[in-house]
Order: sequence, then structure tokens, then C-alpha cells
Amino acid sequence: MPVPASVQLGSGQLLIDSSFSVAITGAQDAMLKDGIDRFMTQLSQQTGIPFRRGAAEHGATLTIRAQRKSEATQTLGEDESYELTVNPLGAQLTAPNPLGILHGLQTFLQLVQPTQTGFAAPVVTIKDAPRFAWRGLLIDVCRHFIPLDVLKRNVDGLAAVKMNVLHLHLSDNEGFRMESKKFPKLTEDGSNGFYYTQAEMREFIAYAHDRGVRVVPEFDVPGHSRSWLVGYPELASGPGPYTLVSTADPVMDPTQEATYKFLDKFIAEMAGLFPDAYFHIGGDEVNGAQWNANPQIQSFIRAHGMKNNQDLQAYFNQRLQKIVSKHHKTMIGWDEVLHPDLPKSIVVQSWRGPQSLAVAAKQGYSGLLSSGYYLDLIWPASRHYMTEPISGDATALTPDEKKHILGGEACMWSELVTYETIDSRIWPRTGAIAERLWSPAALQNQEAQDVASMYRRLAELSWHLELLGLTHRSAPTEMLHRMLGSDDISALRTLADVLEPVKDYTRADSIKQPADNSVPLNHLVDALSPESDVARNFRDLVQTYVQSGYKDQDADRQIRTWLTKWSENDAKLHPELEQSFLLKEVEPLSQDLSAVSATGLAALDYLDKSEASPDAWRAQQLLLMASAKTAKAEMLLMIVDPVQQLVEASGHPGRMP
Amino acid sequence: MPVPASVQLGSGQLLIDSSFSVAITGAQDAMLKDGIDRFMTQLSQQTGIPFRRGAAEHGATLTIRAQRKSEATQTLGEDESYELTVNPLGAQLTAPNPLGILHGLQTFLQLVQPTQTGFAAPVVTIKDAPRFAWRGLLIDVCRHFIPLDVLKRNVDGLAAVKMNVLHLHLSDNEGFRMESKKFPKLTEDGSNGFYYTQAEMREFIAYAHDRGVRVVPEFDVPGHSRSWLVGYPELASGPGPYTLVSTADPVMDPTQEATYKFLDKFIAEMAGLFPDAYFHIGGDEVNGAQWNANPQIQSFIRAHGMKNNQDLQAYFNQRLQKIVSKHHKTMIGWDEVLHPDLPKSIVVQSWRGPQSLAVAAKQGYSGLLSSGYYLDLIWPASRHYMTEPISGDATALTPDEKKHILGGEACMWSELVTYETIDSRIWPRTGAIAERLWSPAALQNQEAQDVASMYRRLAELSWHLELLGLTHRSAPTEMLHRMLGSDDISALRTLADVLEPVKDYTRADSIKQPADNSVPLNHLVDALSPESDVARNFRDLVQTYVQSGYKDQDADRQIRTWLTKWSENDAKLHPELEQSFLLKEVEPLSQDLSAVSATGLAALDYLDKSEASPDAWRAQQLLLMASAKTAKAEMLLMIVDPVQQLVEASGHPGRMP
Repeated sequence: MPVPASVQLGSGQLLIDSSFSVAITGAQDAMLKDGIDRFMTQLSQQTGIPFRRGAAEHGATLTIRAQRKSEATQTLGEDESYELTVNPLGAQLTAPNPLGILHGLQTFLQLVQPTQTGFAAPVVTIKDAPRFAWRGLLIDVCRHFIPLDVLKRNVDGLAAVKMNVLHLHLSDNEGFRMESKKFPKLTEDGSNGFYYTQAEMREFIAYAHDRGVRVVPEFDVPGHSRSWLVGYPELASGPGPYTLVSTADPVMDPTQEATYKFLDKFIAEMAGLFPDAYFHIGGDEVNGAQWNANPQIQSFIRAHGMKNNQDLQAYFNQRLQKIVSKHHKTMIGWDEVLHPDLPKSIVVQSWRGPQSLAVAAKQGYSGLLSSGYYLDLIWPASRHYMTEPISGDATALTPDEKKHILGGEACMWSELVTYETIDSRIWPRTGAIAERLWSPAALQNQEAQDVASMYRRLAELSWHLELLGLTHRSAPTEMLHRMLGSDDISALRTLADVLEPVKDYTRADSIKQPADNSVPLNHLVDALSPESDVARNFRDLVQTYVQSGYKDQDADRQIRTWLTKWSENDAKLHPELEQSFLLKEVEPLSQDLSAVSATGLAALDYLDKSEASPDAWRAQQLLLMASAKTAKAEMLLMIVDPVQQLVEASGHPGRMP
Repeated sequence: MPVPASVQLGSGQLLIDSSFSVAITGAQDAMLKDGIDRFMTQLSQQTGIPFRRGAAEHGATLTIRAQRKSEATQTLGEDESYELTVNPLGAQLTAPNPLGILHGLQTFLQLVQPTQTGFAAPVVTIKDAPRFAWRGLLIDVCRHFIPLDVLKRNVDGLAAVKMNVLHLHLSDNEGFRMESKKFPKLTEDGSNGFYYTQAEMREFIAYAHDRGVRVVPEFDVPGHSRSWLVGYPELASGPGPYTLVSTADPVMDPTQEATYKFLDKFIAEMAGLFPDAYFHIGGDEVNGAQWNANPQIQSFIRAHGMKNNQDLQAYFNQRLQKIVSKHHKTMIGWDEVLHPDLPKSIVVQSWRGPQSLAVAAKQGYSGLLSSGYYLDLIWPASRHYMTEPISGDATALTPDEKKHILGGEACMWSELVTYETIDSRIWPRTGAIAERLWSPAALQNQEAQDVASMYRRLAELSWHLELLGLTHRSAPTEMLHRMLGSDDISALRTLADVLEPVKDYTRADSIKQPADNSVPLNHLVDALSPESDVARNFRDLVQTYVQSGYKDQDADRQIRTWLTKWSENDAKLHPELEQSFLLKEVEPLSQDLSAVSATGLAALDYLDKSEASPDAWRAQQLLLMASAKTAKAEMLLMIVDPVQQLVEASGHPGRMP
């Protein structure tokens, strides 16, 4: 995962044992060498075999040839292709550059599996290249600060699924996270002490570059800018003072020259720190209140023949674009920056939808899709997977216009995640988005569109990612221990495994997280996986059973095993829940699980006996189902639908579904 | 864990919420400040509450007072006591020095639990101090190299259970792991590239010191010294050359002055690097073959009026002791260094048993117990827990003689562990040893001797240690994934949970690990816990059932649930095992589990019906039990004994046990 562009499977396999070695025959540089070192470490972790390091001897198992060395700075559209041939006697990996080699090594790692004769990679010829050049993940480090070690392991994850951009959302109302030496009050007053120093960021950028990941910085202006204004209130459109701990949503003043002088100096500094060619200025959700309330700004609008605040923002963006351009960067912004006055060189990142991308492409603007890839909405991986950047009106674009659609970015907004839970929100679901953006459109309509296949591969990716150091599985386990205060979490886990957090902005709207983020995110909802694999598999099992006309004995037995376990779970769990203030809110869900499962068992009994259940019983049970389907403590019980299916079917057990 | 010397529980509790803060009223230094920072991080991890950092405001929740600052180097016998008082309105922690404060903070962390009203610590007064001054863990970093990050997280673990010494076994036949600038060939030729630089070691020692852990280095001479001789064969008693990859067991030549000149220069360098007052010279298992074969050495023995090789080693040790002492260190060695010619200042570490300690103490030598604490023997925690340093003849020592017994060290010899599995061999079992060495003798004979209570507390310790970063639970999980090559490890885990590795030196004797450690330790036996909690709990359950006269319905039901699960497990697991070369060896164990469990169910049926099982059936089943009890692929099936108990009982179901 992601599925390569072309795979030709042969017969036989290449054994991987302690004699495994690598030889480099082409260009050599630090990126390649470090990449191969990491590859050997990962292969060792994946097999438990302690390989000998150092220069390969005669007859290496894997021969690597890059045609040329890496660029000092990775660029958009750089050739990322590679070819990998595995034969029983050895493997060859070739690519135009080390970047392609890194991708090929990841593919090789995914090929290695235990077999009857040893760890081995199958005989195969793979020719691979990405469909989109921009395959990114945005991490919002403002709402909750994310330490660099967490970012680093997420970069490892991105590299594993061949994504190539980490977009850091570095400033927002809640915090300014990047040290500026020119404007030290940005972090002194605007970060609560949680920010990256320039030395740290330089080291981090090098880390990401080594792994084929570009770091694109975003400093959001003129809105979402309260954290700037705490230390520099003179930039604001309204009177300060401003504090981090408030809910004000101020906007910079685009009518004063001092604002542009400040931003020029600031962007000059940041352009020197961040080597990437792109520079993201945010530009989203500008709240017009301060502009409307400021007579000087309103007269500026009239004086310059503008119609409204949108025109004023376009004016601001034009000025900003010139500054960004002066510092040799290409400007990116969110949907709102799209305005006919802006040059075609800017890139638009769409949080609104593929439709915006189509409109932009039609006008000659390049764009990225993020709508549909918001990880904080807690959607199932399948929904992200089905989100296609070239869809709707975009399918009617000319091939040249389509080229303006550069790719997309998964977005991890951090209002409801911490350093501890962020891995579990990003992974493994981002793997599905990575595949959507990498694998060819033709495959997307065949194999890759097969959601079941995607989920199978996503599950394998998931444990590989833990092996790599991500904590999306282990951290939630620890959270269950601590909310129960106990080593025995079996009953709580049984419940947690069939729950999901509520979707969309339901929780964000209800939690009223204060600006200082002092509300602990340590509830059961925080320790849940965004989607319940157990519930999905149970749903499939019920589907199989129903489609067999209630004849599939094996499915029947498995459904019974699950329902029995669940129906008995509350008896064990209830007393445990009563002991912890964090888990009191979970009691109704635990009761629902056992009650719904008992109903399911009764429905199964009717179906097994081919005896219609009484109408009154069904009506009563359907009321229970309706109540069990409502969200409780921001969580949803995910097995209600399939049980309801059994209940409904029990009304006419003789009828084929 | 470990149980404090004195605990007085009150009523009520101190709530821990986001307003929690710490104030320092006594002495302040970096050790204290860093310790409190780590404490806040750990409390945050343990509760999920994001505490505000920085100086405590008025009315701190926890007030800390150390009477004086830390010493630059931690010393043996330094006061480690503390007093902790928790009241509903606040807590006070006082100690003579920051070391005691660190211990008290660990106790506070263990007190914090989720309650019905919030995270809270109970109202309590604790007065605590260690029973023994030397409470250590030896890690052998030679047989398998252990990277510093692994050592660091183990230091965190030691601090959590109030242990205060990490003894690094830094040289042995298989590798020399410490950089010497004076003798660079020690690591250039003798380490295969796996060693610690001096800068790394300095940073590591500071890390351990910050956590109240002394780092005691061991350089093993004159035996166990092949790695020295690869680069410096002139030190040997027999002709070289020597290589790491051989099984030779050469010994240094104690008859030539050049040996002492070398060791003087080397120890001078290491004495400067390691600040601890103690310096371990090994001295164990000197193989006399080279001495016997060297006529010059034999004539030296005769010329100096010595009787044998033991006398020669004593001569060597006397010379060495003078060198160690010249560099202001106290010499430690294993049992064999004990010899009347050595000064009373040396310390003897006993791998032979408490008896040696008693003999040494009687003669006025100080000693440490390690016999009974060898973690590589894969004993249950209870067996280590019952190993008492002052036992046998030692109980008859005078109080002053008893003072010579300084404490003990758990020993993690690394022939059969890697960086990946070492945590699971050390933890949580070392917690039981820590309690033995910390808690007062009086308590050891009451509460702490209660093995069931020890296991309950050990289980809680275990998940806290994972939260702290140890991987004794998560790493084995990943290993199951990789040997199966699959995300679904449920059936393999069910089996693994009732298996244990073979004990003592059974596996070491059979594996014939070559000197280069190229045999991968990636089998199921490597991923097993040293003791099966599931099997222990099952044994207790059967015990309860039997002692109830086969009447305990709840125990009956639980036993049945387990046996049913196990009896069905092989059907799912068998096809999975067939796919992986690593798991073929596991098939007989999987079959045994299911067969033994089926037998157990049949025996239960007889008991439930109060009907005697036929003699012939029992005889046949007991044969199966005998076969199922034999080790297979270096693993033992741990549920056979309790099932056998059921089978035997089924012969006379009416008779009370």
C-alpha cells in the first residue's frame, strides 16, 4: 500500500536471511546511504534477523542504482519513479534519483513476508510512479502543540506510504509555534512556551528531507491570527490588548503599511529557514467584524474602489504574494485566496471541495484537495478513500487543465487531539488517502476501488506502522489502563472495540474547549479508534449470514459467539465503570451493548428455528435499537445496525432476503 | 511497589485536577528541578491532564522540601529516606536530600488512581527508607549489544521501583563495548562496531544520576577477556591471534608486568570516565587451560610459592586491587575474588548463593547477592521474590556482620536477549526483586511475603512501566504480528498466553549461539512472557474449584470458558502456523493445548455429574498430560498441571480434595 502502477507477479521467491546484503552501483549520496541504513534497520525489525552492516560483499542480495544524486531541496514534480525486480537469486532496484529509491525500498519492505521456507519476497517486476506530485499531510500544531518526536515518527509513517509533504500549520489564534528571532514576542507572548526553536526546525527539516518529505510551513494571515497580536497588537484591525486565553477572532489590518513591513521582514526570515519552494499564508475564514467596525478600514475600502471585505482581502493577498515572491517562494492559500486579481502562480488548497478545484483549474490556478480528507471528522477510511480529487466538474477538464490539480493533503486539525492521541487519528487511515493520491486512476477504478481489499491492506499497514514507532494502537491501550486504574482492561476493551467517536463537528461543537486547551482529552472517546474494525467485520458477518438465507452455519456460530460475549460483558464491566469518574458516562453504552446483543441472540433463535418473531416483540426491540443508536458521551455503538437487521429478518424467517 | 517501610492510611483523598501544582520550599538544585519536571510529565501521562508548568502559585497542591542539595556523585549508603503526607487539601514531601524526594515522588505517582470523583491520592502518611543500600540491575551489553536508548528507558524503570544501581557488564569474550582512547583497538577490533563512545557514556551517566541511579562499570578480567585480546594479543596467556568469532576462552597473563601496566593505564582512563566509587573487575570463571599449558606461567606459580591457579588469580587480584585503589575506587568482583590475601575493602558479588555472602561477611568482606536474581533463567517472579539475601547461615550473623550484606543485583545476561526482547525479560519481574531489597524485613515476613499480593501489585506496575516507555508488552505483540505476517494474531496470542520459555540454561545449552550472535532470536519463545499470567490465574481458578469440593459454580463456568476457547483454538491456528517457517515448530504445542483442554472439559463433565471417570480413560489422559508437559521448541505448556488435577479428581468426584 499504496498499490504500485504496474505489478507483474512471477513464480518463486527471494529468501531473506542473515546473508542479506545491499550493493550500490549508481550515484551515491548521504540521502541514499542513510535511506539504506534505515531500510536495513527496518528489515531487521520486520524479521528479527540481525543483518551485518557495512559495504556489501560480492553478490549482494539487493542491488541499488540511482542515476543521479539528490537535489539539496526536494521539489514538486521531482521524478519519484522506480523499478523493482525481484528474482530468486537477487533483486534490483533502479530509479532516476534517491527519492525513487526510497519509495522502492518501502515497496520491498512491504513484499517481505514469512513463508514456509523463510522470510521472503515474491518474484515480481514492479514499475511505479505516483499519480499526483503533491501527497501531503497537514498537522495543526497550534490548537494542541505536537512535540517534534511525534512529528518525526509521523514523517516515518508518511515515508512508509510514499507521501511527500508535511504541511505544518504553525500559527493560529491559539498559539504561535515557530521561533522568530526578528520578532521574538511572537513566541514569548503567543505560545505559552510551546514552540519550535529554529535550530530544532532545521534539524527536523533535514530529518524529513532524508525521508523524501518536504516540509511546507503555513503562517495563517490575516485571520486566525490572535497569537501574533498578543505580542504585536499594532498589527490588528481593532484595539487590543489580545490574550491567548480568549475567544476573540481578530484580523490583521491590511490598510497600514506597517503590516506589510512586518510581514516582509517575517517572511524573509522564514523563507530562509524553510527551504521548500512553497509558502502557505493561510488566508481562510477571515472574520469581517473588526474590518466592519473600523471606520478607517472602511474608508480605505471606499477610497480604493473596492466593493467589500473580500476585495480588501484580495488586495492584502496581492501585496502578500509580492512579498512571498520577492523571497523566492510560491504562495499557497486556502480557497478564499482565489481571486482574479491574484497571479496564476499561486496554489489554492481547497477545504471546500473538488468543485472549487475544478473552478480554479479552469481559470489556470493550481490546486490541492483537502476537503474529504479531514481526519478530525472521524470518518471511516473508506470515505476518505472514495474521495477523488478529479471528480464532478473536474472530470470534464481538458488534460492540461487537469494538470493543475496537483494532488491533495490529509488534514489533522488538532482541536481534539493531543501528542498522545494524534497518531491514532492519523493512522492507519492516512494510508487510504496515500493510496488514492499515489496509485493510477485506472487502478483506482478496479482493484484499489475495492474497499474490502483496501481494508485488508490497511490492517497490515497498521501493525507495520507500530513496528516503525507509531503509537496508534499502543497509546490507546495505555489510556484504557489509566482510566480504569487497572491492569485488567479486557471488559472495557470489549466495549471500546465496538464504539466509535461521533462524527463531523459534533464533539467540537459540544466540548467548548477553552482557548488554553485545559480540558483533558482523556475520556473513552479519545481512546477509541476512529472506526471499529470489530463492528465492520461483524456487519460483514451478518451480511454473509443474511445473504445465505440464514443457512450459513459457520456465520451463525460466529455471530452467536460475538453476541454471547457482548451480552455477558456488562455484568463484568459495570462494577468497574462505577469506580472511575471518567467511565461513569460509559455505563449506558455498556448496558446497550449487552441488551442489544441479547436481542440479537433472541432474533437468531427465531431465525434458526424458522419461526417468525412476534410483531409486538419486534416493535419493542426496534425501540431499543433506536435508543441504542443515539450518541452517548460523544460515542456511537456500532453493532446496532446489523443486530437490527437480524431483528427485522426474524419477522419473516422463511423469506429470502 | 515496593511496599514502604511505614504506611498509615487515613480517610478521604486529595483530588488531582488541572489546578495541580508543586512548590519547593527547601534546597533547590538541578536534580530536584528535573525530577519534578519528569514527575509532572509522568503525572500528566498517568491522568491525561495537561498541567500548567512553571513556578507554583500560592497554595501548591504538593509541597516539597529537601534539607540539602544533591552530591555531585551519588554514594553508597546515602540517605534515601523520605516522608510523604497526603491530606485532602494538599500533600507534603520531605527528605534529607533530592534522592529521597525522587523516591517519594515515585510513591506519590503510585498513589494516584481514578476514583469516583476524579483522579486522586488517598489520605496517607508514609515514612520510608530502603532496607538495603545497594539495589541494582546488571545488564550484560556484550553478548548482545544494548543501545543507549534501551538502557535509558530501563533506568526509568529502575527509578520507578526505587532501585539505585545499574551495573554495566562492559566487556566479555563476545565484545568490548566501551571506547578507550588510550587503547583504541579494544573497540576497533573487539566490538564489531557496537560500543559506546565516551561522550555517549558521560551523557548516559548524567541521565542515570538525574534519576538516582549509580552506573557501576564492569570490565571482566583476567578471564572472559577474548574481546580485549583481539586487538591486544600480547596480554594473553597463550599464543594468538584471537577473533571475536571463535569459541576460545583465553585468559590474561598475570605473570608479566606488561599486563599490569596496560590495566593501570586503562583503569586510570575508566576511573576518570565513571564517577562511581566502585569499579567491578569481574574475576569470574577463569579457565585454567591456558595457564596450565604455559610452562612459563607454571614456573612463575612455583617460583612464587603458590599452590595452584587459584593462588595465581589471587595474586592477580591483589595487584589489580592496588591499581583500582590507586585510582580511588573500591574494587568489586564475583565470588572467585574472595581470598584471604585480599583486603577487606573489596566487595564480593555472589553468583553462587547467599551461603557465599555469609562466609564473606563472617570474614569481614562486604557482599551483594545475585544468585537467585538471574533474570535469564526465566523463573517466575515469585521465585526471585522469595530469594532473601540474609538467609541460611547469614541469619546467624551478628548485626554488625549482617551490615556487610549490602544488597543485591538482578542480572540480565544477554546471550538470549536482544534490544527488542530485553525489556520483557527485565520487566515486570525486577519489580519483585526491587521490593525484596527495599521493603523492611519485618514486612517481608508479612504483607510482602504474600505472593498473591505481590502479583497483584506487579500487574499494576507492569502497565505503569509501559506508560513510562518500556516495551515489555508492546514489543512481543509486534513480534507475534511479524512471525505470522498478519494483522490478526488472536489465535496465536491465545496460545502464546499459556506458554512459557524453558527454564534455567536449557535453551542456552541447546541453541549453540555462535559468538557473532547471528542466530536470530525471533521465534515464539522469544516473544513469550517469562511467566504466563493466564496459566497462573487458571491454576488458581482450578484450585478454588477443587477446594470448593467441585461446587463453586462460578469457578466451574470460568474454567469451562477457558477450556472451550483453548479446545477450539487449534482449528483456527493450525492453518496459520503452517504458513510460517517460524511457527511450524509451534504446531505440536497448539495441538496439545486443544487436546489437553478437551480432556479438561471431559473431566469437568464427570465432576459436574459426580460420576467417576473410567480408570482406563484416566490412564490414557494422564499419558497425554505427561507428553504435553515436555518442552517443545524450547517452550512449556503451562496449563497441563491444573488440567491433570481435574483429570485425577474425576476418578473420585465424591471425595473431598
